[in-house]
Parts: sequence; structure tokens; C-alpha cells
Amino acid sequence: MTHSEQTYNQIAGQRVSRLEAISDGVFAIALTLLVLDIKVPVSETIKTESALFDSLCALMPKFLGYFLSFMTLGIFWTGHTTQFIYIDKSDRRLNWICLFFLLFVSVLPFTTAFLSEHIHFKLAIGVYWLNIFLLGVTIYLQWAHAYRHGFLSGSKEAIETANKVIRKRVIIAQTLYGFGALLCFISTYVSIVFIILVQLNYALALFSARRKR
Amino acid sequence: MTHSEQTYNQIAGQRVSRLEAISDGVFAIALTLLVLDIKVPVSETIKTESALFDSLCALMPKFLGYFLSFMTLGIFWTGHTTQFIYIDKSDRRLNWICLFFLLFVSVLPFTTAFLSEHIHFKLAIGVYWLNIFLLGVTIYLQWAHAYRHGFLSGSKEAIETANKVIRKRVIIAQTLYGFGALLCFISTYVSIVFIILVQLNYALALFSARRKR
Amino acid sequence: MTHSEQTYNQIAGQRVSRLEAISDGVFAIALTLLVLDIKVPVSETIKTESALFDSLCALMPKFLGYFLSFMTLGIFWTGHTTQFIYIDKSDRRLNWICLFFLLFVSVLPFTTAFLSEHIHFKLAIGVYWLNIFLLGVTIYLQWAHAYRHGFLSGSKEAIETANKVIRKRVIIAQTLYGFGALLCFISTYVSIVFIILVQLNYALALFSARRKR
Amino acid sequence: MTHSEQTYNQIAGQRVSRLEAISDGVFAIALTLLVLDIKVPVSETIKTESALFDSLCALMPKFLGYFLSFMTLGIFWTGHTTQFIYIDKSDRRLNWICLFFLLFVSVLPFTTAFLSEHIHFKLAIGVYWLNIFLLGVTIYLQWAHAYRHGFLSGSKEAIETANKVIRKRVIIAQTLYGFGALLCFISTYVSIVFIILVQLNYALALFSARRKR
Repeated sequence: MTHSEQTYNQIAGQRVSRLEAISDGVFAIALTLLVLDIKVPVSETIKTESALFDSLCALMPKFLGYFLSFMTLGIFWTGHTTQFIYIDKSDRRLNWICLFFLLFVSVLPFTTAFLSEHIHFKLAIGVYWLNIFLLGVTIYLQWAHAYRHGFLSGSKEAIETANKVIRKRVIIAQTLYGFGALLCFISTYVSIVFIILVQLNYALALFSARRKR
Repeated sequence: MTHSEQTYNQIAGQRVSRLEAISDGVFAIALTLLVLDIKVPVSETIKTESALFDSLCALMPKFLGYFLSFMTLGIFWTGHTTQFIYIDKSDRRLNWICLFFLLFVSVLPFTTAFLSEHIHFKLAIGVYWLNIFLLGVTIYLQWAHAYRHGFLSGSKEAIETANKVIRKRVIIAQTLYGFGALLCFISTYVSIVFIILVQLNYALALFSARRKR
Repeated sequence: MTHSEQTYNQIAGQRVSRLEAISDGVFAIALTLLVLDIKVPVSETIKTESALFDSLCALMPKFLGYFLSFMTLGIFWTGHTTQFIYIDKSDRRLNWICLFFLLFVSVLPFTTAFLSEHIHFKLAIGVYWLNIFLLGVTIYLQWAHAYRHGFLSGSKEAIETANKVIRKRVIIAQTLYGFGALLCFISTYVSIVFIILVQLNYALALFSARRKR
Repeated sequence: MTHSEQTYNQIAGQRVSRLEAISDGVFAIALTLLVLDIKVPVSETIKTESALFDSLCALMPKFLGYFLSFMTLGIFWTGHTTQFIYIDKSDRRLNWICLFFLLFVSVLPFTTAFLSEHIHFKLAIGVYWLNIFLLGVTIYLQWAHAYRHGFLSGSKEAIETANKVIRKRVIIAQTLYGFGALLCFISTYVSIVFIILVQLNYALALFSARRKR
């Protein structure tokens, strides 16, 4: 690799605003991807209100899958925006860490659908967990890289606080997800219920909300 | 839940610009989703101009469904942008209210298609109304939360005026939609025509436009 | 309609940046919509290089349709961005004019595919022309409304120049498209070739480019 | 072509921010397009963990195709953002060069899928190479045009350095891709492995990363 290419690598990937824009674009598509899978039941076969109701109920697993995927993506999107409150510089490595994060974002609708279709198989939980794990790894690396290279803005104190809570958050969440995935050796249903509860908690902050009042 | 996680919740979800970006992305996709459903009639079966015309007419319900979905999404998108003239701060709860709003946005093309396919069933109107109702609830909560926590910018007076008209608008609109949905116990066609008229009025502001001249 | 709703209409739809964002989102989707239609030929039926070449040639009409749709959308997107160099205020009516413009944008991939599938029928040209005509009407109204209500920024002189060239451009282009559409009464192929030449000229500015040198 | 139209061409296409927005939108869609192709295997036919594992393995070529397309688009997106660190003005010609670049961006998922489906045919490699070549040509022209017309911001020195490394980068990369494509006359597998290695190197900057430590 020549000198000039190293220089290219030095100037490439510095636009934080573009990173945010492409991320929002990919997230917006991933958020809506599973809706494409929910097909309206055709009218010829349906003659009564209760038949229509049954056809709607038959779609419930797809709606649940969509909801689950939306929640998970919402959690990681919120995590992504939270990091970018602080990140205001970038280099090509941060650029590519973020792109790999987006790779796992766009695959999540597939792994969620795979899980909801094959919920009684350990492999489906393993694949779903792997996806969430890789999202966790890349979002952690993104922050760690930005922190190490001084790409963060804000007061020293604010950065240190953010650094502590953001890292801790990812590690605790991933520990819970990993524990949930291991529960599949008892029962896949126990496993998935545990993971969904963890996600609901992160989305709705139920416990902390209750505490505050 | 540990102290550090409460702190994470305190720093998370503060980027208003990102909330606007993801919203525009999800809306752009939802706006175009029903177009994907309109398939070009294949050429082999069509031999004459009038056969082509008939095949185009057969697509009319899909075009109407698309138009209806576009109008409704346009109304809520306009409402969303109107609130964000004022909202210039956010916290993670506003973040999640907005994400749930987007969840109902991206489901709207489905419920609209469901309605246009099963227009003679009360259940289809009920599902469609529920979607619009949940959009109304979340957009109302979004404003109420932002108002209560002082996330609004502008003069005291401008905020108070906006607060009054935005809340009133949602409540009146939802009352009309609810009334329209109840009309399905008379006739589903009466119900849907009433709802479409309400939406046309909100989109085109026909009455207020006429008045002003 | 009550007083408070008129006030809502007065505060609604003022965010130019959001209008630009939703427009770019809808355009980005419309630009890529026809790619979804181009399916990779399956491998089992294809045994030789020349069979693969034939299968690729069989896709040519779809590629041409995609190219045509991309060009047309590119022309109107450029027109849209050109207007928004000047437009820096908005009201709810401009908001809705722009949304209707986007409605016709997102339908264009359909009408283009309809045309390329039924190129020998006058009706297909009529539908395609109607779409382009409605795009022209809404983009013209958008400018006229912004001009009339003083939503334009820049020096008096710059605005007047822009006003003249933008209006003239739309009118000349629409006249050419209308003339091209009428040619279908001679031959649909003559008609479509003429329209494509007009579009290529607008996209590539061939004539003006030649002149300048 | 009249004088006023030349003037339209002079005012058209000047919004760099809109060019970036539409580019991010098209890239976000192109990045996720091949995910739509990966369908969840249906549950009825799958009775055991190992059958599910086999069905997942059967999807591997699609995952690899998706990964390859993501990498290539990531490389060109990074290149695009890198140029737009400097480009801060535009004219309608730059506008259209960028739009043609986006045309080739949105076609890349197709050519990648075409390649992964017909990997043993020289034609598939030729088509894939042609796409990458056209991406290279348009991104090079974009820079050259912006450089020649003084659309770049920054110190004279920074611009000259950027100019050198950006041009060199495209030329070296395209030489390597072209060489890789020619290898298909030995073996299509050698050819594709070579091209993938080149792309991995550009994405991960493996060599330069190793050097720096």
C-alpha cells in the first residue's frame, strides 16, 4: 500500500453528519421491513366478520415479530443517537465500525422473522442472540474507538460520566441477553420470554420509571 | 436497576434532529409502501385498448387505498412537523413516544389495505379506526410530554397558543374519527365516506379556505 | 370550522427543512423502486454463457423502464431542489402542494412500468403523460404559491430572474411533453421516442452544452 | 434552446446539502435491498434442529451476496462522503453526474445477486465489473468536475493533497478491479476471490492498519 493511500485513509470517513444520515436511513428501512411481510388476507375466501377476525388472528405472530424487531431496533437506535450526542469527529475506522453496525441492523428483521417462525428451535434463538450480540459488539467498539481517539465533545466530566454509563449499559444488557439465550437449554419459550422482558424494560424503562415517582 | 442505568436514561434520546430524521425516513417509506402493492397488469392477456383500460380500472381500489393512506400519513406528518416547530429538546421518554408513533405510522398502509379489501366488514373499519386512534394518542402524548417538561422553544405566548390549538385539533379530529367509526353500525359505507370526508377536509382545509376569501 | 382550527392551519406546515427531508426520502425510494422489479434469472434453466446473455437481454425492457423512470425523477428532483434554493418559508398549503407533488412522484415508477409493458397502446402513453403533467402542475403551483406569498429569499432581482426562468421552463417542458403525447395518434413509438428525447435533453442539457463551447 | 433555459441550467442543481441527502437515501436503500431477497425458510417442512441448520446453510450464498454488496456500497459511500468534505458548491452538471452515480449505486444489488447466482459464468463477472467500473467513472468525474470548476473548499494545500490522493485512489482501485475481472479468463473463481480481497482490503484497510502499529 502506497503512501498516498494511507493519506486517503486519513482524509476518508470524517463526516459525522453523513454517518448519522446514513444510519437514520438504514434504521428507517429496517424498522419498516417486517411490515412488508404482513400481507392482507384476500377477500374471496372470507365471508363473515368472524372469518375475517380469524384471518387477522392468524397474522398475530407476524405482528409480534414486527413489534419485537421494532423494539430492538428502537433500543439500538436510541443507543446510537445517544453516542452521537458526544461523537463529533470521525475517521475511516469509526466510519466502518458504524457501517458494520448498520449491516447487523439491516439483518435484524430477518433474524427476528426467523425466530418467530421457528420459535421452538434452539438454533433460532442462537441466531437471534448472535445478531443482538454483534449489534452490541459494534456499538461498543464505536464508542470505545471514539473515546480512545478523542472524537468526543463536551466537558471532561460529562464525557467521563457518559463513558461510564454507556459502556456499563452495553455490558449489562449483553450479559442479560446472553443469559436469556442460554435459558434455551431449559426451554426456548422461557428463553424468548426472558429476552423480550429485558427488551421491554429497556424500551419502557419500567423499573426506573416506577422508582422515580 | 442500578444508579448508572438511570443516568443512561437521563442522557439517552436527546437528539431532536435525529428524531426528526428517523421520522421523515419512516414516513417516506410508509407513504410509498402501498405503491409496491400496485402491480402492472401483464401484457399477454391484454390485446386491446379497452382491455387495458379495464385492467387499469380493476386497479382502482388499490389506487384509492394508496391515496387514502397517503392523505392520512400526510395529515399526521404535517401534525408531527408542526409540533417540532416548537419542540427543541427531548428526553428518552419523548424519544420512545415518538418511536411508538412511528410504529403506528408504518402499520397504517397495512390497515388501509385491509380496509379497502374488506370494506363491507365492521371489523375492517374497527382496525383502521384503532390505528388512527393510536396515532392520535401518541401524537397527543408527544406534545403533552414536551409541554409538561418545558421542551418547547418560543415566546410564552406563542407556546400557549400552540398548546391550545394543537391539543384541540387532535381531540376534535379524534372525536370525528370515533363518531365516523361508530357509523359502521348503520352502514360500513356511510362510515368510510364520513371518515374520508373528515380527512379530505383536514388535508385540503376546504372550509377554512372558503371562509378566508 | 372553529377559530382555533384556523389558527392550527396558520401554524402548521412551516418547516421547509422537513419538506426537503421528506421529499428527498420519497424521491430516494421512487428512484430505486423499479430496481425491485428486475429479478435475477434463476440458474437452473441456464447452462451456457449465451443462454445467460439471452436472459440478460430479456431484462432489457425493465432496465430501460428503470432508466427512463430514473431520468424523469432526476429532472423533477433537480427542479424541486432548484425551487428550494429560493423557498425558505412555508405554510400548510405549500406543505400540501408539495405532498401532492410527492404523491405523483411515488406513482411514476408504476406509470413508467405500465408504459414499458404496454408500449403499443395509446392508453399507456396517456397515463404516463398524465403523471408527468400532474408533476408539472404541482411543481408549478408550488413555485407560484411561494412566489405569491413572499416565501422566497434572495435579492429582488435574483427572485425575479428565477421566477421567470422557472415558470418558463415548466411551461415549455409541459408543452413538449403534451405535444409528444399527442403524437401517439400517429404512432405510439414516435410518441415515446419524442418524449424520451425531450427528457434526455433536459437531463443532459445537450444543446445548451454544445452552444457554450 | 432559448436564453431563459440556459439561465435555468445556471441556477439549477446548486444545493450540495440536497445532493448529500438524496445520496444517503439511495445508499441506505441500496444497502438494504438484498436483505429483501433473503426469505425465512417456512416452518412446515422443517422438523429438526439439523434440518433448520441445513435450511440456514442453504441461504449462505444470499448472505454472502448481501455482504459483498454491502462492502462495495460501503466503499463507494465512504468515497462519496470523502469528496463532499471538500465539495461545497455545485452546478447542474455535478448534480447529474451525482445522479448517474446513484443510478449505478442502486443497480449494484442486482449485479451482485446476478454474480452470486451465476458465479461460474464469465458474463456475470463482466456485468459486475462493468457496474463497479461505471461507479468508478462517475465518482471520478464528480471529483474532476468539482475540482476544475473551483467547487472545493479548504486551503489550497489541503485541496491539492485531497485531489492527488482521491484521483490516485480511484485509478489504483479500478486498475485492480479491471485486472481481477480479466482473471476470469483463467477461472471465474480466481477472479471473484481476487476482487473480494481487493474490496476487503479497501473496507478494512488491513495492510495500512498493520503498517501503522
